[in-house]
Amino acid sequence: MANMAVTEFDTIAAIATPPGEGAISIVRLSGDEAVTIANKVFKGKDLTQVASHTINYGHLIDPKKNKVIDEVMVSVLRAPKTFTREDTVEINCHGGIVPTNKILQVLLTNGARLAEPGEYTKRAFLHGRIDLAQAESVMDLIRAKTDRSRKVALGQLDGNLSQMITALRQEILDALAQVEVNIDYPEYDDVEEMTSKVLREKAFEVKAKIQNLLVTAEQGKILREGLATALVGRPNVGKSSLLNYLLHEEKAIVTDIAGTTRDVIEEYVNVRGVPLKLVDTAGIRETDDLVEKIGVKRSREAIAKADLVLLVLNNSEELTEADYELLEATKDKKRIIILNKTDLPARLDQVKLAKVAKTEEILATSVLQNDGLAKLEERIAELFYGGIENSQTSVLVTNARHISLLEQAEASLDAVLAGLDASLPVDLVQIDMTTAWELLGEITGDSYQDELLDQLFSQFCLGK
Amino acid sequence: MANMAVTEFDTIAAIATPPGEGAISIVRLSGDEAVTIANKVFKGKDLTQVASHTINYGHLIDPKKNKVIDEVMVSVLRAPKTFTREDTVEINCHGGIVPTNKILQVLLTNGARLAEPGEYTKRAFLHGRIDLAQAESVMDLIRAKTDRSRKVALGQLDGNLSQMITALRQEILDALAQVEVNIDYPEYDDVEEMTSKVLREKAFEVKAKIQNLLVTAEQGKILREGLATALVGRPNVGKSSLLNYLLHEEKAIVTDIAGTTRDVIEEYVNVRGVPLKLVDTAGIRETDDLVEKIGVKRSREAIAKADLVLLVLNNSEELTEADYELLEATKDKKRIIILNKTDLPARLDQVKLAKVAKTEEILATSVLQNDGLAKLEERIAELFYGGIENSQTSVLVTNARHISLLEQAEASLDAVLAGLDASLPVDLVQIDMTTAWELLGEITGDSYQDELLDQLFSQFCLGK
Repeated sequence: MANMAVTEFDTIAAIATPPGEGAISIVRLSGDEAVTIANKVFKGKDLTQVASHTINYGHLIDPKKNKVIDEVMVSVLRAPKTFTREDTVEINCHGGIVPTNKILQVLLTNGARLAEPGEYTKRAFLHGRIDLAQAESVMDLIRAKTDRSRKVALGQLDGNLSQMITALRQEILDALAQVEVNIDYPEYDDVEEMTSKVLREKAFEVKAKIQNLLVTAEQGKILREGLATALVGRPNVGKSSLLNYLLHEEKAIVTDIAGTTRDVIEEYVNVRGVPLKLVDTAGIRETDDLVEKIGVKRSREAIAKADLVLLVLNNSEELTEADYELLEATKDKKRIIILNKTDLPARLDQVKLAKVAKTEEILATSVLQNDGLAKLEERIAELFYGGIENSQTSVLVTNARHISLLEQAEASLDAVLAGLDASLPVDLVQIDMTTAWELLGEITGDSYQDELLDQLFSQFCLGK
Repeated sequence: MANMAVTEFDTIAAIATPPGEGAISIVRLSGDEAVTIANKVFKGKDLTQVASHTINYGHLIDPKKNKVIDEVMVSVLRAPKTFTREDTVEINCHGGIVPTNKILQVLLTNGARLAEPGEYTKRAFLHGRIDLAQAESVMDLIRAKTDRSRKVALGQLDGNLSQMITALRQEILDALAQVEVNIDYPEYDDVEEMTSKVLREKAFEVKAKIQNLLVTAEQGKILREGLATALVGRPNVGKSSLLNYLLHEEKAIVTDIAGTTRDVIEEYVNVRGVPLKLVDTAGIRETDDLVEKIGVKRSREAIAKADLVLLVLNNSEELTEADYELLEATKDKKRIIILNKTDLPARLDQVKLAKVAKTEEILATSVLQNDGLAKLEERIAELFYGGIENSQTSVLVTNARHISLLEQAEASLDAVLAGLDASLPVDLVQIDMTTAWELLGEITGDSYQDELLDQLFSQFCLGK
């Protein structure tokens, strides 16, 4: 475990609710001075005297000017029964950007420090309330794009993944202990052989379990981050209508990344639990006003960024040069070819299309008449869940850091096996086995370095 | 007062925090069944037994599937010490769109009804906790664009405006009462004369006070809604740089209107307390890539929508045809002419410009060298505060509904005075005086109609 400087535990403050306008916003304090600082800016009961886990009505004031900032409800939560395991105060104020910022500002001028991104969760980890994998799942839960992603994140928060990793580490540790015993008591003849056998068996077993986990990783990563999806096609093939269908209010999740302007808004749609992260929808919205050339050029850029391409063709027109270009540009991508406008007389040569596209599988739709769209959704879900049996386990590896550590641990176990095959001395093989144990420990944070923590928590949103 | 159907007070639920990703979101319940419904979906303490105003840790579950949805903190607040004066439960869950929606959904399937926009505040009004002007200020507080707007809204929430209106109504009522006395006891000779005198004096007095309030209305409305501002000029005069300066993180407030896409995002900047609502900044961002013509065309559209035009010219080039067009197009607008790029050798003929613009007042700036920008901000603030002495009163009329009612009340008082001048019978004059009293009562909600309430509260955000 790393040493913690005392300053790490001063009292921090941040806005805990999403930025924007709403009925209520929360400004949160955590640390030894949380209650004292809150009391300085509160007019109502004496907060230092109220019982823990109570809510207190009053006014938030600027004590220097003795001016009221807002009408508030203040929750006082005494350690250790809090998220951070520290004294915590939550100030519920009228939502909105200006009043909320003003309250934060007064707390900062009265002794609190602005929390870094993820600092609340970091403290929960450092105080032992949750392990690292659980801490990471907090952000996954917040950023969950679909109900399925939420379930997976919640499972991880409940410690499902952590338990599995802890069990794997215990298996490795048991094997290493047995090896130590064998070395310490070399009275038996077959010591070397037995040691090899124990290490080999255990390395095989743990490796197989890691591989099982890694199989879930692709699906897990998509559930967590969304499947980058490009919707391409010539102007007037029906892209905008399809987009509008997908963005239909119950499906669309528009994510505004805090503190930025319209340029980086991300749009997700939920297709049967699969979060599609739409690439360059702004382009689609504009395309209909612009000349054909721009449409194709922008499509190329969108295709390059996408993991899945939805290529829309117009059933009521012959294939054009632009269509051929798009078919060529997407040929190595995971794609679904959509033949739209089936409500109009067919003019497109499907045999030719199948030949060019090198697939018979072409989805006929009429977005206008809401025809074939359920099948499209089905196909997307199929493509996504197809590779893996739809297992009942809620443990999915979703996190790139976890995936990388699991892969490294797998490589260490391979090194163990290779070492044994090459009859290397046991103490060399032990090193690789120990490395696997340490790498797995980094997932739960049983072994970690300060830089890792800093880097990891800095990806959190402010106030978490 | 209107009759209330019993169904108006069933138990309602809504998400109370802004939409988006944050550390914490709140789902709120209000009504007789609030605690019972919350208890059905909560695993932890028995919420029906806990003390009021306490916070309780536990898990939110879907009772039909007995599945955990999220780890939560639940606040139980018993009537009448709540915002709505009804039993209220606030569920603090992990922020994020999906978990929060899931919780709302479970509450709705377990007996709650989705709250209409503004329904919480409407109940606070119907239960007599706040009057109508105060209710309206709740939304103003949430939507406040600058610290100054926040103060005005807070003053109104505290009842400053309501007190003033109540006092005016009392004055009218006193006068009417005195008239009644005079009519009932007509033993005095000069009854008619006295009655006229009382009514005339009071109508004058109250009218003067209403006019004082209306003087603040323009400023108040801008503080509340922002001053629509267009930034126009040819490409490459420095519009984008000026925009970036104005959008500098400490000044910019980007407002995402809930549930919509990027097209309707509004951007505000705070210039010395004046909220400028920027018109068509997307146009500016794009302009540099597009041909000159489009720039001028879009500028015309922006100018049409604006209350204030910032017209940027390039000091280092001669005036062009496009500049003349823009000068002409903005000549009847409130505008500030900015001569930018003073860091470069001057090529623009300032004498000619002053003649065309019909003003000597031209602001020289170099956005690049951060020169003249403080003066620009000063000028904007001056234009805005200029008309009114910077009074210390925090009562500003900000709301279009209030302004309209005050104007109608003023017209009724004018009718009183005209009636007296024409020696109309006192009972006719009394009617106009009573109308003024009723109109003022509509501001505070002492007299109101159901349709007014429905229309007014429907403008609120969801969850408020």
